[in-house]
Amino acid sequence: MIRSFDPRTGEAFGPEFAATSEHEIEEIIAGAHRAFPLWSGTSPAKRAISLRAIADALDANAETLVEVADRETGLGKARLTGEVGRTTFQLRTFAQALESGDFVKPVLDAAVDAPLPVGHPRFLRTVIGIGPVVVFGASNFPFAFSVMGGDTASALAAGCPVVIKAHSAHPQTSQKVFDIALEALLNSGAPAGIIGLGHGHDFGKVVIADPRISAGAFTGSKSGGRALFDMAQSRTNPIPFYGELGSINPVIATTSGMTDPAAFATAYLDSLLLGNGQFCTNPSLLFVPNNKEFLDAMAVNLSAREAQPFLSKATKDLHDRNRDLLVSLTSGRVQNAKPAPETGLYTSAQVHIFAAQEISSIEAIHREYFGPTGIVITYESLGEAIAILDQLEGALAASIFSGESEPQLKEIIISLSRIAGRVCWNAWPTGVAVTTGQHHGGPYPATTSPLHTSVGVFAINRFLRPITLQGFSDELVSSLNVEGGSK
Amino acid sequence: MIRSFDPRTGEAFGPEFAATSEHEIEEIIAGAHRAFPLWSGTSPAKRAISLRAIADALDANAETLVEVADRETGLGKARLTGEVGRTTFQLRTFAQALESGDFVKPVLDAAVDAPLPVGHPRFLRTVIGIGPVVVFGASNFPFAFSVMGGDTASALAAGCPVVIKAHSAHPQTSQKVFDIALEALLNSGAPAGIIGLGHGHDFGKVVIADPRISAGAFTGSKSGGRALFDMAQSRTNPIPFYGELGSINPVIATTSGMTDPAAFATAYLDSLLLGNGQFCTNPSLLFVPNNKEFLDAMAVNLSAREAQPFLSKATKDLHDRNRDLLVSLTSGRVQNAKPAPETGLYTSAQVHIFAAQEISSIEAIHREYFGPTGIVITYESLGEAIAILDQLEGALAASIFSGESEPQLKEIIISLSRIAGRVCWNAWPTGVAVTTGQHHGGPYPATTSPLHTSVGVFAINRFLRPITLQGFSDELVSSLNVEGGSK
Repeated sequence: MIRSFDPRTGEAFGPEFAATSEHEIEEIIAGAHRAFPLWSGTSPAKRAISLRAIADALDANAETLVEVADRETGLGKARLTGEVGRTTFQLRTFAQALESGDFVKPVLDAAVDAPLPVGHPRFLRTVIGIGPVVVFGASNFPFAFSVMGGDTASALAAGCPVVIKAHSAHPQTSQKVFDIALEALLNSGAPAGIIGLGHGHDFGKVVIADPRISAGAFTGSKSGGRALFDMAQSRTNPIPFYGELGSINPVIATTSGMTDPAAFATAYLDSLLLGNGQFCTNPSLLFVPNNKEFLDAMAVNLSAREAQPFLSKATKDLHDRNRDLLVSLTSGRVQNAKPAPETGLYTSAQVHIFAAQEISSIEAIHREYFGPTGIVITYESLGEAIAILDQLEGALAASIFSGESEPQLKEIIISLSRIAGRVCWNAWPTGVAVTTGQHHGGPYPATTSPLHTSVGVFAINRFLRPITLQGFSDELVSSLNVEGGSK
Repeated sequence: MIRSFDPRTGEAFGPEFAATSEHEIEEIIAGAHRAFPLWSGTSPAKRAISLRAIADALDANAETLVEVADRETGLGKARLTGEVGRTTFQLRTFAQALESGDFVKPVLDAAVDAPLPVGHPRFLRTVIGIGPVVVFGASNFPFAFSVMGGDTASALAAGCPVVIKAHSAHPQTSQKVFDIALEALLNSGAPAGIIGLGHGHDFGKVVIADPRISAGAFTGSKSGGRALFDMAQSRTNPIPFYGELGSINPVIATTSGMTDPAAFATAYLDSLLLGNGQFCTNPSLLFVPNNKEFLDAMAVNLSAREAQPFLSKATKDLHDRNRDLLVSLTSGRVQNAKPAPETGLYTSAQVHIFAAQEISSIEAIHREYFGPTGIVITYESLGEAIAILDQLEGALAASIFSGESEPQLKEIIISLSRIAGRVCWNAWPTGVAVTTGQHHGGPYPATTSPLHTSVGVFAINRFLRPITLQGFSDELVSSLNVEGGSK
């Protein structure tokens, strides 16, 4: 049985959800399989209508949704109201992409009458939906990366039915969003089976292994994501698996980038502790010049900050265990926030401070804490910091705070570019805009698929497979449901 | 020791190649690792100069290269001369793409001053090389899919150094091509370590597992490719692995597409037996109306065809073993070519004929023979053929021969589109033009990465990772070596 817990009290509430049965799983997958040719054969313009219908229905129910999500996640109504807005904006962004055709630029390659290797017949290179997709909802974004989040929206936009695994930390929110979306989809003409929802740990394992599923998308922990990735790759027919896993998002400030050390300390803690640090773009690792004013200001600012609740007991326990390991390394150079309440899922924030020179192995600092824990590394020279940067694993984002005339600027940017999917100039990595220019991806373990983004218009490309039609006339192409043909 | 064999005599000849030692492997990988920032930081225009230098050097040595390749592969000088031309055309096509910038369309997404979720900072979304790449040469294309084939050319174009595993069936050709290319690269200013070549079975296994390698590309058998794919995915940090494995490329003819049955039989055998059937786009499975004229003409035409040599003893043995299994199923309905010579690596061509109705399990026909063996399925109604098509695995290509007014045309095309990366209209699948409109890919087992092509300009995308620069000024961007910035 899956049950909601209130992070502010740690107590269970609301209905129990039974794990989806074997028979129900089969029905969901079979439904998606049957829906695929119908949905994939639906014109982009009609798919856009369905996406807008979901967005409208979610907006109309925003208040109720936020209420239940707030009780399940403890993220607060302001943040959650914004997240519903982001989710429906995302659905409409994909609708717009479908209408404008921006998401795919079919290549019409006219026949060339010449000897080989130059000559060739007429080619139309376009895209088709990859097939039914399984999406795993995330704990930290109950709307934007869950049932009707970016993964589902982009897969539906691509013409793929979606089987969704509800996250166990917010089953009520998941079920409500699903019910609203399904009704909107069916009323707008989408085929039966277009989306399916399942609960329970086994659901995901069964679905990802099913030969009728053609791709997977996941946002969550490195261990959970890697396990699913391994299942997807070890199938008889391996499938693309777009996992957005853990990320340490390094931030480096030069002296010229930290002209007001106290303001910089405040801004850092604001980004670090946003959503209780439970963001994949959290600035886990900050490199700063060894500056007393910054460290003192940070200590004062942090000491006044209240604890926020964790999303779930599992998340809190993992964070606390990992931090215990860290504490033994940095005793004496730890700054603390206000003590946490005794009841509920609270842990007080901490910042651990290291000197760059004392870091002999990056292992201790090279861990995602996914919670209110920051690591600050003070350096005497930029070279010390760059040497550590060059040892880091893949990251979703990285930031540099600096003036433009810093001598080692180019070196730092190249170093950050080599590990990160997004490099921010004088801005914190948290906050991921949904737009064409976005890239929310990066080398492993940031993602399992470094060529793709899970945010922004290009996210749709993950679920579209290129196909070339050779020697097809315009008449023949327009009789098919492919982009570049009839719309 | 690796040794060349003459397929026409089955006898060893020429120098022995020692398996690359552990120490040499380390030097090659370390060289590629050191070369990456230098090559990736080389402007596209300069990388284009290097690609053209390789093409010029190969063209200048074409005669010598063809001579040794012919003796190692038995493919014939005409075909091999054409293949060198295709290889150098390919190198120049990528050079041209680098010069025109066609391969990457950087997205400049201007800042939007509005509340969330609409507002956002300025984004430049561009691409950077993924890192050092390992390429596994193919047996059946000693030039176009080997040392300086499409995989290497596209990886070099993307700014990635390449570590190459020579195919054991043509070590001399591999070494000669490598030596010529390396000299051309270094003379044109490419950094030391830009390419490395290794021999021997262990070489590939060690390289694919090395953490300094960021992607792999392979063309070859399903078993070999899958083993390497599994190694790449089970690394601590999994990497993209672009395997082009086996493919049954179904061809279906309607009555209106086979108006001259005898000419159709000749064209079929020409495509089936091209290169002794050792093509990944070989039309392994042909669906035709049950037509006596076609079957009779095919028997006569086939009986006059001479045997051609296999590329290697391993390829011949695997083909012959698989065909023995098939023979027991179709006794009595087998057509034969001329008997094969006793010496050398020859096997006589065969076509095995089934009626669609008698196919209870697709397993027997669902195998890639990679040699001079065709399966022809005769149908009484198109529905019988479509029912079998719908059970087939992913394919690189598929063909339909038909008139445009065939009632079930759309149904057939949709069925073929769902399994194939390229659908040909009234044309055989063999012959893969190197051009922008090409897609040489498809669902597993055609490839391990159905979103990508290994032929054509878009092949470069496999080795480019998107990256977003957030809030960077034009001045700052132009100081970096990224597309959309300085060239």
